[in-house]
Amino acid sequence: MSSAFKFGELSVSIFGESHGKAIGVVIDGLPGGIGIDFDAVLDFMARRAPKKDGTSTMRSEKDFPNVVSGMVDGVLTGTPLCAVIQNTDQHSADYKSVSHLARPGHADYTGYVRYNGSNDLRGGGHFSGRITAPLVFAGAIASQILESKGITTGAHILSIMDAGDERFDPVNVNAEQLKQVRSRYLPLINTDVEQQMRDVIADAAAKLDSVGGIIEYAAVGLPAGIGSPMFDGIENRISQAVFGVPAVKGIEFGAGFDVANMYGSNNNDEFCIENGEIRTRTNNHGGILGGITSGMPIVFHVAMKPTPSIARLQKTVDYTTMTEETLGIKGRHDPCIVPRAVPCIESAANLAILSYVI
Amino acid sequence: MSSAFKFGELSVSIFGESHGKAIGVVIDGLPGGIGIDFDAVLDFMARRAPKKDGTSTMRSEKDFPNVVSGMVDGVLTGTPLCAVIQNTDQHSADYKSVSHLARPGHADYTGYVRYNGSNDLRGGGHFSGRITAPLVFAGAIASQILESKGITTGAHILSIMDAGDERFDPVNVNAEQLKQVRSRYLPLINTDVEQQMRDVIADAAAKLDSVGGIIEYAAVGLPAGIGSPMFDGIENRISQAVFGVPAVKGIEFGAGFDVANMYGSNNNDEFCIENGEIRTRTNNHGGILGGITSGMPIVFHVAMKPTPSIARLQKTVDYTTMTEETLGIKGRHDPCIVPRAVPCIESAANLAILSYVI
Amino acid sequence: MSSAFKFGELSVSIFGESHGKAIGVVIDGLPGGIGIDFDAVLDFMARRAPKKDGTSTMRSEKDFPNVVSGMVDGVLTGTPLCAVIQNTDQHSADYKSVSHLARPGHADYTGYVRYNGSNDLRGGGHFSGRITAPLVFAGAIASQILESKGITTGAHILSIMDAGDERFDPVNVNAEQLKQVRSRYLPLINTDVEQQMRDVIADAAAKLDSVGGIIEYAAVGLPAGIGSPMFDGIENRISQAVFGVPAVKGIEFGAGFDVANMYGSNNNDEFCIENGEIRTRTNNHGGILGGITSGMPIVFHVAMKPTPSIARLQKTVDYTTMTEETLGIKGRHDPCIVPRAVPCIESAANLAILSYVI
Amino acid sequence: MSSAFKFGELSVSIFGESHGKAIGVVIDGLPGGIGIDFDAVLDFMARRAPKKDGTSTMRSEKDFPNVVSGMVDGVLTGTPLCAVIQNTDQHSADYKSVSHLARPGHADYTGYVRYNGSNDLRGGGHFSGRITAPLVFAGAIASQILESKGITTGAHILSIMDAGDERFDPVNVNAEQLKQVRSRYLPLINTDVEQQMRDVIADAAAKLDSVGGIIEYAAVGLPAGIGSPMFDGIENRISQAVFGVPAVKGIEFGAGFDVANMYGSNNNDEFCIENGEIRTRTNNHGGILGGITSGMPIVFHVAMKPTPSIARLQKTVDYTTMTEETLGIKGRHDPCIVPRAVPCIESAANLAILSYVI
Repeated sequence: MSSAFKFGELSVSIFGESHGKAIGVVIDGLPGGIGIDFDAVLDFMARRAPKKDGTSTMRSEKDFPNVVSGMVDGVLTGTPLCAVIQNTDQHSADYKSVSHLARPGHADYTGYVRYNGSNDLRGGGHFSGRITAPLVFAGAIASQILESKGITTGAHILSIMDAGDERFDPVNVNAEQLKQVRSRYLPLINTDVEQQMRDVIADAAAKLDSVGGIIEYAAVGLPAGIGSPMFDGIENRISQAVFGVPAVKGIEFGAGFDVANMYGSNNNDEFCIENGEIRTRTNNHGGILGGITSGMPIVFHVAMKPTPSIARLQKTVDYTTMTEETLGIKGRHDPCIVPRAVPCIESAANLAILSYVI
Repeated sequence: MSSAFKFGELSVSIFGESHGKAIGVVIDGLPGGIGIDFDAVLDFMARRAPKKDGTSTMRSEKDFPNVVSGMVDGVLTGTPLCAVIQNTDQHSADYKSVSHLARPGHADYTGYVRYNGSNDLRGGGHFSGRITAPLVFAGAIASQILESKGITTGAHILSIMDAGDERFDPVNVNAEQLKQVRSRYLPLINTDVEQQMRDVIADAAAKLDSVGGIIEYAAVGLPAGIGSPMFDGIENRISQAVFGVPAVKGIEFGAGFDVANMYGSNNNDEFCIENGEIRTRTNNHGGILGGITSGMPIVFHVAMKPTPSIARLQKTVDYTTMTEETLGIKGRHDPCIVPRAVPCIESAANLAILSYVI
Repeated sequence: MSSAFKFGELSVSIFGESHGKAIGVVIDGLPGGIGIDFDAVLDFMARRAPKKDGTSTMRSEKDFPNVVSGMVDGVLTGTPLCAVIQNTDQHSADYKSVSHLARPGHADYTGYVRYNGSNDLRGGGHFSGRITAPLVFAGAIASQILESKGITTGAHILSIMDAGDERFDPVNVNAEQLKQVRSRYLPLINTDVEQQMRDVIADAAAKLDSVGGIIEYAAVGLPAGIGSPMFDGIENRISQAVFGVPAVKGIEFGAGFDVANMYGSNNNDEFCIENGEIRTRTNNHGGILGGITSGMPIVFHVAMKPTPSIARLQKTVDYTTMTEETLGIKGRHDPCIVPRAVPCIESAANLAILSYVI
Repeated sequence: MSSAFKFGELSVSIFGESHGKAIGVVIDGLPGGIGIDFDAVLDFMARRAPKKDGTSTMRSEKDFPNVVSGMVDGVLTGTPLCAVIQNTDQHSADYKSVSHLARPGHADYTGYVRYNGSNDLRGGGHFSGRITAPLVFAGAIASQILESKGITTGAHILSIMDAGDERFDPVNVNAEQLKQVRSRYLPLINTDVEQQMRDVIADAAAKLDSVGGIIEYAAVGLPAGIGSPMFDGIENRISQAVFGVPAVKGIEFGAGFDVANMYGSNNNDEFCIENGEIRTRTNNHGGILGGITSGMPIVFHVAMKPTPSIARLQKTVDYTTMTEETLGIKGRHDPCIVPRAVPCIESAANLAILSYVI
């Protein structure tokens, strides 16, 4: 198996190649009877669509998710939900003349070995970032179901190179702030940093290079007591799902890697009573203790690597002829994938969380 | 479900509470016919056993894994392997008089809510670090099966506070080095740092406090082409398993979070041919591209939080009376769990990797 | 979850409703590099298509499986294979005016409760026999992969009422016979019984009634030693999959329910050596002992209930008004679903067997 | 994987070999806080224990399930429940001198191939009927949890050869009747048939032979709307679990194989309203439509083959020397396994049903 996960009663199966006929997703195990705001789904998906700066709308008319099952008159039927997104540019590549130069940072070579040389290499095939479009459809649906249960989620760009946004307040972040930040063109808490971030990206592009970054996610409204110890807890499911997003190289919950430099007395979050509810004064635990929610916001960061497709010449090999070659990648590629990855990370995490509350 | 995982045909199910009768593990899906060096299993397990500095042997006579099924005359039968470890200290706590003060950083409160107030609270119950003993048994078995297939794994302490070891050379780390480092009393590459590390830990202990750290893991000998894209790749399975080790708050593969500060031209690992084989000159990808092995060493780091049990007084709540209280944790607790966590991390990752090659 | 299964590394997820936009299937975990004879797939699918007696071709031009991913130039890529079948008759029913009379023998009422009244009721929705079309696509693919490994499977109608075909010779049934029988318009070993069987069906139709029957499946070419004891053996996976075909009410392997009337000395299959291979002289065990193949043909029967949609007036209830009503089902319905169910049973079993040999 | 199943959030993993140190089970996913009547568990298990006719007590003092985790003071903790049963007779067989004659009807040969000749052959090893003892422990626990939710289950011997009991009334069978029948020494509805059944068994024993039979199971108290269509419905999970009991060769729900001889108008169960609830007048559907409960009793039958161990001489092969041999099985073996299999079937089905309601 590869592109499916099953968390408890929830199953998500993603299919498609970049230059095949279509890509899509089947989500099995959703509850029947929940109304879906389809415009909101399209808005959510538009956040990962290629952006033209200066346009006034975030709505993309491409990558339209054609819901072929599981929804009638805008209401989930409870039986498998399938959305199919047609590939309109599939004419662009000739399968026979595809290159066998391994693009550094890509899965060309590893996929070639894995699939006995038969996987679709055009445009990255099944490894293409394009395959996140159906994931984001699924994540948008998950977002609405979670919202119907009082759970709100959102993510923003925490940093790209030295251009850094503020962190969520891990104790007090609320639903309104999450909705606001994720609605922004560049999802940032401190919009003052937007220009600096754009400059960093433009600078990389000018150098025919690319940059990565860090994304911060939060979820609020989960009650305490959701999840499980050891292998099936919140961190386990979220991390399994999040590493399904291409270019993710790390994930940390709460204080994350900073814990290595903290004393226990600093890292421990003291419990207190506020308005009759148990809370913690700090939230280094990221809302999760023993794999189970504490009722505090779930907070995690993921590291996204720089776009591997860069225009600069790179040394590599032809894995069919076993010769060393020089590669120049053509075409337009995002100099920074992080903004478009934000809804992808949200989607993976939303689905993981959803699996506990359906 | 909580304390079991199923990766492909491999299933691992861990049971037990700190002060119950016994803890243990069932491993289902192992190949029949592989001989196990049981002394080596005990040595592997001894690495997570409580250590008395100054002793000459690492062999612990406690926590003996009683193999009750799945092995005959030292050879795996292929049917479920079960090891049971008796709890000898189970008399120590009276169930009725157990405290309901939520120890900060522990799962007392979250577990209480999760299990309707019925989970075993004595000594942390199922959330106790003691439950990693059977995990390490399973990891030791996995280690030997992997070794029989030419795959060697190992881990070391990368840092505790400002006391930092060298990193593995991600390109050239080899089996011999892995075996050597994991055999050390304090698993370090650069043994010169050992005293500094001991001092940091001793200093924390003197302050009635604790410290966390970072563990680095590597696996060599995996061929290219193992794994799968999206949700069932190497990173997915390893991270799902590794977050099963208590106190893990983050994981990063290859360059990890550093990718956020790198240009694509620096992060991309150029392919080359060496001795007729495809390799990369650098290994920022940590041996994994698109969820699939490249043939380069698999390398990842995990962040371990400081031991939450500290002797200092802490503020907290009684979650049954809903009152704020002050808590002083008694008893002996490791001021730093990182050294004993090293074989736990190895074990979780070994099992994840094993699932692809059985 | 509902309409997906995951056997080891193989995952199959079926989606769609009878009157929705499309139905289809995602198959994840197939090996890359296997060439598919697409005409043979269409022929296989044509076996479950509605039949007009007297036509010379079995090829149906409807229900065309549009492969949108996982296959390039007729070769499996190894990444998820998705086929989408458009629903052309979706205009036929108005969602708002759908009846809430529970058709006896159908899942109208149980589905209504299960999905909070939101499942698509038109034409049976997700419970429609139509949903087996993508299953049969998947089964046809499985059949070809199995064939590439020397495994041949097939099924026939064993009986419909008192019209009974011969059984497969459970010891000597071979690949050629399986291919021959499954290619027949009515899949029978003894074609002399065809007219009698047609008469039984025609008689039921004339009475505005329907009939069920028994299907027999066999697989040859599996080596000994495939499968597992207890819960993940051949019988477990096949039965889990086969009960996914609507109208199946029973399954028996080898001598099946007849064992209740046999002595051990009759039921036990004696082992012998033939041409240097271990075989059994009889095959009451249906090719499976302890969940594991013996190398003898796998043989099982399934019971298919009569088509529940009959034109006769039936008493029932309106589950929204909670009143007793009389129901007359309109439209054309197969008086016997068994002939079209044969490839469905093959498909479910083929996928179960495939999961062990990929 | 082999001896574990995972249904939704419920995971059951069975371990052990007949002559190993111990056998047992881990059940993960049970709810915390449910009190267990341990005497009732022992009584349930006693039903599968070897019986000495004429004794006044059904309580067996052997095969005691030592609960090592998951239960404190008789209450489920919600974390994994593990019971270990010591093998007291493990001295009886010498591993080195074990026979390699394939006992007909046993998994000696198939297991040998499956496990590369390394599985424990003594006493059938992991394939021994003894391995059902932990299954029955799990089933007894499941029975009590179901009972706490108003669901009662039970099974009886429907037939052994021509000695046949009455069937459950599939419409009106109730909790009291189920509890009564399962408490009987020979679980029969019509106790008048007991002597005839004993005679049939005694007759087989006298002939150095064995007999099989049919077991009927029923569950009452499940509300309508539990389960799922296609691959994850009630029939799917029950059949997957039930084929985990050794010697099962078939299963049929409701009217089962009789449907092959019925008209739709006879097989369809008309809906009606009784006391304000929707029911059916007949129950040929066995309480399940479309994989989902209808609220009527769940009823199924399983076919149990005759004990394969018989004293009569049988022809077979030595699979290591590849020679034909004659085998005389020594020792005491049940001439009919059916009475002891009744609680095994109950247990497998109870666990399958439990997985939907936790």
